[in-house]
Amino acid sequence: MLKVAVAGASGYAGGEALRWLLAHPEVEIGAVTAGGNAGTTLGTIHPHLRSLADRVLLETTPDTLSGHDVVILALPHGHSASVSSVLAADAVVIDCGADFRLRSESAWTTFYDTAYAGSWAYGLPELPLAGGGRGRDDLAGTRRIAVPGCYPTAVSLALAPGLAAGVVEGDDVVVVAASGTSGAGKALKPHLLASEVMGSMSPYGVGGTHRHTPEIEQNLEAAAGAPVRVSFTPTLAPMPRGILATCTARVVPGTSAADVREAWRAAYADEAFVHLLEPGTWPATAHVVGSNHVVVQVVLDERAGRVVAVAAVDNLAKGTAGAAVQCLNLAVGLPESTGLLGSGVAP
Amino acid sequence: MLKVAVAGASGYAGGEALRWLLAHPEVEIGAVTAGGNAGTTLGTIHPHLRSLADRVLLETTPDTLSGHDVVILALPHGHSASVSSVLAADAVVIDCGADFRLRSESAWTTFYDTAYAGSWAYGLPELPLAGGGRGRDDLAGTRRIAVPGCYPTAVSLALAPGLAAGVVEGDDVVVVAASGTSGAGKALKPHLLASEVMGSMSPYGVGGTHRHTPEIEQNLEAAAGAPVRVSFTPTLAPMPRGILATCTARVVPGTSAADVREAWRAAYADEAFVHLLEPGTWPATAHVVGSNHVVVQVVLDERAGRVVAVAAVDNLAKGTAGAAVQCLNLAVGLPESTGLLGSGVAP
Amino acid sequence: MLKVAVAGASGYAGGEALRWLLAHPEVEIGAVTAGGNAGTTLGTIHPHLRSLADRVLLETTPDTLSGHDVVILALPHGHSASVSSVLAADAVVIDCGADFRLRSESAWTTFYDTAYAGSWAYGLPELPLAGGGRGRDDLAGTRRIAVPGCYPTAVSLALAPGLAAGVVEGDDVVVVAASGTSGAGKALKPHLLASEVMGSMSPYGVGGTHRHTPEIEQNLEAAAGAPVRVSFTPTLAPMPRGILATCTARVVPGTSAADVREAWRAAYADEAFVHLLEPGTWPATAHVVGSNHVVVQVVLDERAGRVVAVAAVDNLAKGTAGAAVQCLNLAVGLPESTGLLGSGVAP
Amino acid sequence: MLKVAVAGASGYAGGEALRWLLAHPEVEIGAVTAGGNAGTTLGTIHPHLRSLADRVLLETTPDTLSGHDVVILALPHGHSASVSSVLAADAVVIDCGADFRLRSESAWTTFYDTAYAGSWAYGLPELPLAGGGRGRDDLAGTRRIAVPGCYPTAVSLALAPGLAAGVVEGDDVVVVAASGTSGAGKALKPHLLASEVMGSMSPYGVGGTHRHTPEIEQNLEAAAGAPVRVSFTPTLAPMPRGILATCTARVVPGTSAADVREAWRAAYADEAFVHLLEPGTWPATAHVVGSNHVVVQVVLDERAGRVVAVAAVDNLAKGTAGAAVQCLNLAVGLPESTGLLGSGVAP
Repeated sequence: MLKVAVAGASGYAGGEALRWLLAHPEVEIGAVTAGGNAGTTLGTIHPHLRSLADRVLLETTPDTLSGHDVVILALPHGHSASVSSVLAADAVVIDCGADFRLRSESAWTTFYDTAYAGSWAYGLPELPLAGGGRGRDDLAGTRRIAVPGCYPTAVSLALAPGLAAGVVEGDDVVVVAASGTSGAGKALKPHLLASEVMGSMSPYGVGGTHRHTPEIEQNLEAAAGAPVRVSFTPTLAPMPRGILATCTARVVPGTSAADVREAWRAAYADEAFVHLLEPGTWPATAHVVGSNHVVVQVVLDERAGRVVAVAAVDNLAKGTAGAAVQCLNLAVGLPESTGLLGSGVAP
Repeated sequence: MLKVAVAGASGYAGGEALRWLLAHPEVEIGAVTAGGNAGTTLGTIHPHLRSLADRVLLETTPDTLSGHDVVILALPHGHSASVSSVLAADAVVIDCGADFRLRSESAWTTFYDTAYAGSWAYGLPELPLAGGGRGRDDLAGTRRIAVPGCYPTAVSLALAPGLAAGVVEGDDVVVVAASGTSGAGKALKPHLLASEVMGSMSPYGVGGTHRHTPEIEQNLEAAAGAPVRVSFTPTLAPMPRGILATCTARVVPGTSAADVREAWRAAYADEAFVHLLEPGTWPATAHVVGSNHVVVQVVLDERAGRVVAVAAVDNLAKGTAGAAVQCLNLAVGLPESTGLLGSGVAP
Repeated sequence: MLKVAVAGASGYAGGEALRWLLAHPEVEIGAVTAGGNAGTTLGTIHPHLRSLADRVLLETTPDTLSGHDVVILALPHGHSASVSSVLAADAVVIDCGADFRLRSESAWTTFYDTAYAGSWAYGLPELPLAGGGRGRDDLAGTRRIAVPGCYPTAVSLALAPGLAAGVVEGDDVVVVAASGTSGAGKALKPHLLASEVMGSMSPYGVGGTHRHTPEIEQNLEAAAGAPVRVSFTPTLAPMPRGILATCTARVVPGTSAADVREAWRAAYADEAFVHLLEPGTWPATAHVVGSNHVVVQVVLDERAGRVVAVAAVDNLAKGTAGAAVQCLNLAVGLPESTGLLGSGVAP
Repeated sequence: MLKVAVAGASGYAGGEALRWLLAHPEVEIGAVTAGGNAGTTLGTIHPHLRSLADRVLLETTPDTLSGHDVVILALPHGHSASVSSVLAADAVVIDCGADFRLRSESAWTTFYDTAYAGSWAYGLPELPLAGGGRGRDDLAGTRRIAVPGCYPTAVSLALAPGLAAGVVEGDDVVVVAASGTSGAGKALKPHLLASEVMGSMSPYGVGGTHRHTPEIEQNLEAAAGAPVRVSFTPTLAPMPRGILATCTARVVPGTSAADVREAWRAAYADEAFVHLLEPGTWPATAHVVGSNHVVVQVVLDERAGRVVAVAAVDNLAKGTAGAAVQCLNLAVGLPESTGLLGSGVAP
């Protein structure tokens, strides 16, 4: 059994990490830590995690996190570097935050307000890469892994097959994505109040200012093997979980609808979690909520000269904590899908 | 491994039964059958059940259902008698419908429009009974089990401890319960359209006309050992899953708040799925959605002379399909909680 | 034209007051004031009030509120006494808060933490009173009016006809009501976050501890002409607006279903805003959201020996700000329904 | 007073037309007709329209619709031609359906399955046109007007200012829009059930197959004075009303952010219903639900080389029935905003 700690367990990502770890056959949950909520029981913070209801949240310190095979960090950005620096070099550390995702220091400093901490192996195993590789290629046995952001997961898995296969162009990608409110965490902000959200859709971070923009471009460039330019608009939807990413890119001249389909089919034919749907069936977030699965569909709009690729993910599952456990499996040498194949909850 | 068939698998209850069976370590899913949807793949009907996406729904016939250790029926009421009559006597048959729940033929004929089919063992293991027994007492080894209705599950578990312990009176029980829309199934009715439901609460079956009324009384009478009279009002809430049952009953004169709490505490102290919350914490359906757990709270309102007991359940899980699997475990001699201890999905 | 000020205009009740005043043909909106939000434009605070978008919120002071024909107070409880004490005696002051609703000082001190400020005329015009009067009887020409709470409005209008007519008993009333989240205001509390509310129902203030309990009893006692005892349980529903109140009371022995219906019919036959629906049709909050109307239905459950009366109101409209404008009309001598007959917004 | 009939009054668009007509000071509601629902009272069909509750729906025939100053048609597509052909030539006929919107017969036959009926004056008064005109230029005094579709209204008002001003290019426009469920009407389709919609986002009509695509292009071409190519993806959002349209187009080289803003500012500076928000404030559908207003924001994403323009409208109000009344005002010579300036309902 692997002894796994979760730091930052009082947030939505931390709670979801515990949910997945509870369902994992090779995991024993060790320290469960928090900042301001230390000393509280999990039953108060995450009442849906019945079997951990009496567990008390410890403080996030080097002491509480030491002695574990794996530590999952679910901290606000800017905290992972200092917390991880004191952990044993041979412990697997998996960061659900943004701190180690970007390989470009200048991209980091443009979008974040804390010092650049470097980058770790990037935890998107299914990402098709230029030249034929996959995101998982450099994850086996790694001790430090950065879990992708929720939007970059959805957008990259939606569009990368076409870029890697050379059937779509990367210089004018347009993405509009809708996210449930849990993506914004538990912060007490007026626009996240139920009265404001229910019955309403609204955009935010418009004009390329959302922090996930450079991460999306990093992934799509890894797929394309060339620079990519993305117009990314996230929107807040009246639902607690789920991301629907609608992604369009100009098709390479001479590409047929069959070429497009074949690029996506081939990309995910052997994947356990990413599913290209039958032609005519479109993803809905309800199909994946609570699961580590991703559903994808693509079509060529010949009139507009663009491919439209849509992906639905659960922002907290495959978009965060499910991905963290998938990375854990790869890091420690377990089958990649261990503990992760469960169905979503619908309706 | 137990080979389990699900009849009526295209509805919400059937889909949820498959979700729980997929998570069960001792179960192999056999025939999956339907009526009008026979011939369709499960991927079309229940896109959240990824691992069964390519399974084709068979017709519900004696042939397709034979040869299984267990058959779970999730049929419209009135169909279970004929379907079950042709199944082997030693096969376990678990009916999620109403057909075999009522022990009173006159209650059946008052509330239903089909012929009375008799009654089977009633599958509410945790129900405290007058005289000290539990609902599970006559379930071990049973071959025919009727799964309780979703409202009766919530109401009975909320209120039965007080009746069984003799601290509340049963002659003037008042229950108002809110249910998510999946409780009404997939029927194409105008009042179930999203445009009508979102942002709205409404009652239905008011005045004791809801079919779950006699079943609630049957359970509460089993707990009280005496006649019980219930005013039951169900309401439709703008959420897909979950029941919140608010139940009040007059307290027996001389009963203290401590007496009340002790009655409920003792009733569920050893239960795996029913949890009396800490004083001051109240159930929310979000705490149990996707899980087989039930959360309960009770308080004595001395001014009003009534106990208020509230329970939250997932109508499709503990309210239907989770309960079916729990009954399956009891019937075949597995530990009662096998495959059922998973956490709910929140937020 | 009447010059009307709104104090506390940045909250949901204040914004709704402005919405109704904008639609009123005899009203000119004067000072619009706030506490912490003073200096901000209404376009920022209430973006749905387009025609007031450039108005700047003033501070709530004696100066800003003086010189108006009518002042509507939408303040947190405990502030109305000091604010109103400096207003001209002949100005109409209408308080949407709780401060002046209760005629019993002991009830006030039991439920509130501020000093008792006395009581004003109670603004529920349609309330049937013991002996044949109506709530409106002492409102014409009044200069100080307390607007009822949202739950008391729904519950009182649902149940008072039976008490006033002597067909139901008041000593064991049970009420369970569901409210949208705007009833809790804009406070930044974790349980009001969209992620927590959507898809969930939960009770609060259980056991007679909600502050609206004594106000409900005050109203029902005015209808019954005798003491009334109420078990009241409010619940939070996943919708922004609306209250559905399900109210039951024991029927007086010998009362027929026709007697019950006649009591309710007669009570509201001449009312512009309270509507007894056709038999078989039940209220939904969607029927009244955005309007000053109330829909009511009642049925006798002979088996349970109880009447079930249900009312749906918009908590911000007839439950607060619409009622305030209705009181304004009565106070200044305009037809009671001036500016208030508009339809709700559905779906 | 104008005598106005509504044909097809039992649908959501018809009900909304009645809501706006009830609020109009110069309108008397005449015949209210339906197909299958003829003979039913409006109280049953649209319970929120209290003042019309006792009105009986008549059959949609030449007789019932004759003798009115204005007839508003809210019929399924394909019916308006035959119904309108028998109406008096001097009666104003305003069609909320698609039948007379498209000026291109080939566009019609590509997207619709009924015969082309020709085109009427197009009712989008605020649309900026190439060369400096406005959509309203040919509406004054017109007797036949086609009300725009809900998506085309939102998209056209969002993006047309940039095309008319020559600051954005029209050859690669990308639009992703989210709509509430009332846009799909009251049809009993499985994907419109509340259980399926709540908590879920999904696209439909992907790849340029939605019928509003040619109408969007027609409008944008009128603004640009040149061919326009649009990739349009509509999505279904878990809310009853509202459209949020996120529209991007490549900026003309050399255009500054200030140029972009000025184009939009100038376009709507004098409009009563279309509002360019302050920089940094983004539209939400909650800001306009229940109102005839449109809120718009635009920003230049220099990194992506695209303008992002977002508009929020109420699909049933400015997106259908409010627009119909606005057209009515123009046709009969009333001030354009008569009866339409009311605020939305929020939260």
